[in-house]
Amino acid sequence: MGNFPAPKNDLILRAAKGEKVERPPCWIMRQAGRYLPEYHEVKNNRDFFQTCRDAEIASEITIQPVRRYRGLIDAAIIFSDILVIPQAMGMRVEMLEGKGPHFPEPLRNPEDLQTVLDYKVDVLKELDWAFKAITMTRIKLDGEVPLFGFCGGPWTLMVYMTEGGGSRLFRFAKQWINMYPELSHKLLQKITDVAVEFLSQQVVAGAQILQVFESWGGELSSVDFDEFSLPYLRQIAERVPKRLQELGIMEQIPMIVFAKGSWYALDKLCCSGFDVVSLDWSWDPREAVKINKNRVTLQGNLDPGVMYGSKEVITKKVKQMIEAFGGGKSRYIVNFGHGTHPFMDPDVIKFFLEECHRIGSK
Amino acid sequence: MGNFPAPKNDLILRAAKGEKVERPPCWIMRQAGRYLPEYHEVKNNRDFFQTCRDAEIASEITIQPVRRYRGLIDAAIIFSDILVIPQAMGMRVEMLEGKGPHFPEPLRNPEDLQTVLDYKVDVLKELDWAFKAITMTRIKLDGEVPLFGFCGGPWTLMVYMTEGGGSRLFRFAKQWINMYPELSHKLLQKITDVAVEFLSQQVVAGAQILQVFESWGGELSSVDFDEFSLPYLRQIAERVPKRLQELGIMEQIPMIVFAKGSWYALDKLCCSGFDVVSLDWSWDPREAVKINKNRVTLQGNLDPGVMYGSKEVITKKVKQMIEAFGGGKSRYIVNFGHGTHPFMDPDVIKFFLEECHRIGSK
Repeated sequence: MGNFPAPKNDLILRAAKGEKVERPPCWIMRQAGRYLPEYHEVKNNRDFFQTCRDAEIASEITIQPVRRYRGLIDAAIIFSDILVIPQAMGMRVEMLEGKGPHFPEPLRNPEDLQTVLDYKVDVLKELDWAFKAITMTRIKLDGEVPLFGFCGGPWTLMVYMTEGGGSRLFRFAKQWINMYPELSHKLLQKITDVAVEFLSQQVVAGAQILQVFESWGGELSSVDFDEFSLPYLRQIAERVPKRLQELGIMEQIPMIVFAKGSWYALDKLCCSGFDVVSLDWSWDPREAVKINKNRVTLQGNLDPGVMYGSKEVITKKVKQMIEAFGGGKSRYIVNFGHGTHPFMDPDVIKFFLEECHRIGSK
Repeated sequence: MGNFPAPKNDLILRAAKGEKVERPPCWIMRQAGRYLPEYHEVKNNRDFFQTCRDAEIASEITIQPVRRYRGLIDAAIIFSDILVIPQAMGMRVEMLEGKGPHFPEPLRNPEDLQTVLDYKVDVLKELDWAFKAITMTRIKLDGEVPLFGFCGGPWTLMVYMTEGGGSRLFRFAKQWINMYPELSHKLLQKITDVAVEFLSQQVVAGAQILQVFESWGGELSSVDFDEFSLPYLRQIAERVPKRLQELGIMEQIPMIVFAKGSWYALDKLCCSGFDVVSLDWSWDPREAVKINKNRVTLQGNLDPGVMYGSKEVITKKVKQMIEAFGGGKSRYIVNFGHGTHPFMDPDVIKFFLEECHRIGSK
């Protein structure tokens, strides 16, 4: 941790820790990726996971939005994917162009599961490339903005591992939790153990802030979320700081949780051990602020679809959002309520960031 | 209305009106359809919309679950689709096997929209087949259970009309509301006008209870829902009873609204003029009951995915659900939190219904 360039912009770290700031820090989920022409130039028909695994290329893609939106964006997030944990757990994952992730051998019965439970995961070895990419990116960033590490939430990863890819009906994941609840817990625990080590080692490699993406949280009922997601998210928030201490890192690394669709869990997430709770766009921020009672920093939550709107509407909605989060100078980080889309216009996103700066600085 | 067979089971009508009942009425969204082998026998490779348009076949499919689950199911819902309104508005809609609905010419610019706004809709003529199917079904049902009519919510229909089919990112619908909010309102108003007439004429044809499916409600932020969905849902609830009076129907026809994913709107939906609010499975019923304060009857909300579970888990979750809704003898209708899936086991659904009867009768 000591050998990296000194930070020039620690706005997001201060906001995440609850300090007053001069304006809300800004970043966007999937800010590096397919909507940027320079991404396609660099990726150049390479396989998606090959792109992640090449530290030089992954770091370049990570930095692209920081360069394009220089002075407007307050964090970088390492270019990678939540499915690297299932890969580290011995599962094959392919990324099919235009179709998304595909597991040729998803977990469909207790025997499949046993293979994964028995697999000895060596995080440092299996995800070696990820740590290299983080270290290289941190150095290249030269302290310009802090670097995010991340991972998928255990329930979300279980969905992919059992469904074998994206899903609409979640037939197999739902079968697991309703037919084999105890085995499901074993799988979730194993994923959690790997996630704790993976996040911690990302910090050792240079990550300065962490986010856990529980992207399929909202597919669980409130009661099922309390059983199959929340306990594992809590474990991550509790165990990562301890593991970091064991690894010799004493400083506080802010941790963010984003449980998309799990609106019913906001109150619980605000006291789950995370420093920041990220909100999807369904929330009226005023309601979330009321429930939060200043316990954590909130992040979000503009509907990404607003980027297809007129400048007038974008300005109106940015203003509504920042005001509803209390003005943005305390306990708030600007973001979308979900990631960018591939067909968004980078210039519109620039306008959005400029408006966040203008309105958030008032 | 006067010439139909006398009702033998009006449980759902009484529960919808807020009367005390001996047990909660039960029905399931998409209870007629692809999970039933007898559906495939009757449909027999016919095009989906041809199936809807043939009164004999549509009525047979509608009655299939009532016959299979005789004594266990307390309503029938006419076999049709929410996209018949866009068809009546002059748009072409195809149902692609295994892919879902497809509009060859979706609304993508103001000129496309103008064509639809200028199109003179004759509901009675364009949807003549739907009314025939309802009348025939009502007669065939012989009073065994009440018959539902339904339509899509205006925002949901606008999504399909602009996206041209199912969607994940809702790029075009979001572009409409954020780039052309005023034109979007014109389209929503036109859809609402057609929906009011369509629902009213379904009652004239024999429907005894109505449901509006705002299936894509949850894609709107809380603020956007208040602007682009709620006002039109309210209009429907307000105008249908008036139109029914004009048409000579004086009795109260219960109306249900299901705004999937629009959790933030529950309080408003409970005073929107609908008699029943249907909940998706994200809700802990106890929270919904608290917010409702006995204003409407609540419907729902088991995660359909529970049907992939063990009998033990199904029983546990049915018990939790009915108890959380207050025992089921007042202001409650059993349903899933969304429709059946094509690969569900009809025998498991039977077990679910039996458990609802057993536990709900206690």
